Amino acid sequence: MITSKTNPRIKFIKELRKKKARDETGLFYVEGIRPVGAAFEAGWVFEEILVAPGLLRSDFALGIIDKAGKSKITITEISNDAFLSISEKEGPQGISAVVHQKISSLDILTNNGGVWVGLESIQDPGNLGTIMRTADSSGVKGLILLDNCTDPFGMEAVRASMGAVFSIGIVLATFEKFRSWQEKSSFQLIGSSDKAISNYRKIDYPTNFILLMGSEQKGLSEPFINLCTNMVSIPMVGKSDSLNLAVATGIILYEILNQHSFRNGKG
Amino acid sequence: MITSKTNPRIKFIKELRKKKARDETGLFYVEGIRPVGAAFEAGWVFEEILVAPGLLRSDFALGIIDKAGKSKITITEISNDAFLSISEKEGPQGISAVVHQKISSLDILTNNGGVWVGLESIQDPGNLGTIMRTADSSGVKGLILLDNCTDPFGMEAVRASMGAVFSIGIVLATFEKFRSWQEKSSFQLIGSSDKAISNYRKIDYPTNFILLMGSEQKGLSEPFINLCTNMVSIPMVGKSDSLNLAVATGIILYEILNQHSFRNGKG
Repeated sequence: MITSKTNPRIKFIKELRKKKARDETGLFYVEGIRPVGAAFEAGWVFEEILVAPGLLRSDFALGIIDKAGKSKITITEISNDAFLSISEKEGPQGISAVVHQKISSLDILTNNGGVWVGLESIQDPGNLGTIMRTADSSGVKGLILLDNCTDPFGMEAVRASMGAVFSIGIVLATFEKFRSWQEKSSFQLIGSSDKAISNYRKIDYPTNFILLMGSEQKGLSEPFINLCTNMVSIPMVGKSDSLNLAVATGIILYEILNQHSFRNGKG
Repeated sequence: MITSKTNPRIKFIKELRKKKARDETGLFYVEGIRPVGAAFEAGWVFEEILVAPGLLRSDFALGIIDKAGKSKITITEISNDAFLSISEKEGPQGISAVVHQKISSLDILTNNGGVWVGLESIQDPGNLGTIMRTADSSGVKGLILLDNCTDPFGMEAVRASMGAVFSIGIVLATFEKFRSWQEKSSFQLIGSSDKAISNYRKIDYPTNFILLMGSEQKGLSEPFINLCTNMVSIPMVGKSDSLNLAVATGIILYEILNQHSFRNGKG
């Protein structure tokens, strides 16, 4: 059992708070019973699972650890103090893991079809995680993070996703790469902008397409708008001139889900 | 001009970060050109406006200060350093204000009618601010904060509201007070719960009613559910078992706005 807060493994895990360390190793840190369980159930590759037996009180979690051990995943026991020194949660549950990042190429869209969300230069990790969670809930296949987005494997994004980071696809692409792929693909692009004339509820969303959302500060940029076959806006009746990005994305995604369910006779 | 970071006024403003100081004084702190402008335009009562001339670069803001001065609002000039010591923003714009809180009683619903959102024990100030912003955008008259909610006049809630805190009504009430008011009122209650059978898009929302949303962790409690004439849920098709509270509220509010716009011939 690791008991020292200065143990090299503990130090390494703390390093994973930094994007540089995550980029260099291709790993990330995830904490809590449900997220670790979601990663395991979804078949993600684990570097190790950390367990503080003194804190862990859940039979469900003990079941995961048992199954993980049988799958030859390294289980490292650590002391409560050492666990608390790496914990990012209030009320730590005594289980966390170091997991290998899974980033897909744009081919995953071609192979899978469906609805995807493209996010241009989204900056807020809480928004990104919340959008992952909504995407999963509304049947979206995954996110395409375009240009300079906040890291989907950063702790705040992972935490806000409530495990959804493990159940949707994550694609990273630059504008150029995205454009050249899209030219050859059958995926339509529909963008969202405060200034668009079409009400988001008045257009038909295709079965396979990408919903493009801009950054919190600047919205969708001209080059991306120019790729879109349609631009939609959400009506605003008060004094505010925009919605929170995660809220706006959720509102449009649920309109899409509703249209698609209706089309499939489930509406 | 105040130049010292230890000036009593500066210290007093820093104290307003604490709920205790806000409760005792009935004041709160708001920062940035747009929020201060929104408070002024909406006719809120100012204690003072703080200006760091060395940081302020906006003609719009100078216009507000000019109008505020004519309205006999105290304008205090402070040094850049003193301003930075109280600033809560990245990229401070050199304007902030101490404003009197405005809390309404439940009578405001009776007098105004319309759609209101009741939040039971919401904990996250970012969620609360985001819900204010969405409420304003979707034509909601205001929020009723039920039982122990996070402070709507805390800095994070105010900031996340993007000025909407000044354009919607804020009511605080305990369950008992709310229940006894509601028994005598004509307002229907419609609640939201993951477990409800009615799809949120399949019911008709009245012109005057309260949408009740539960806390992030626990959802709506039984006593509140028992007051509702209808409970609705948002369908979930992925592995996640709930949506972020602000996203869920936004999705339902935009369904309500859509129904009401359609009914008024604007759909």
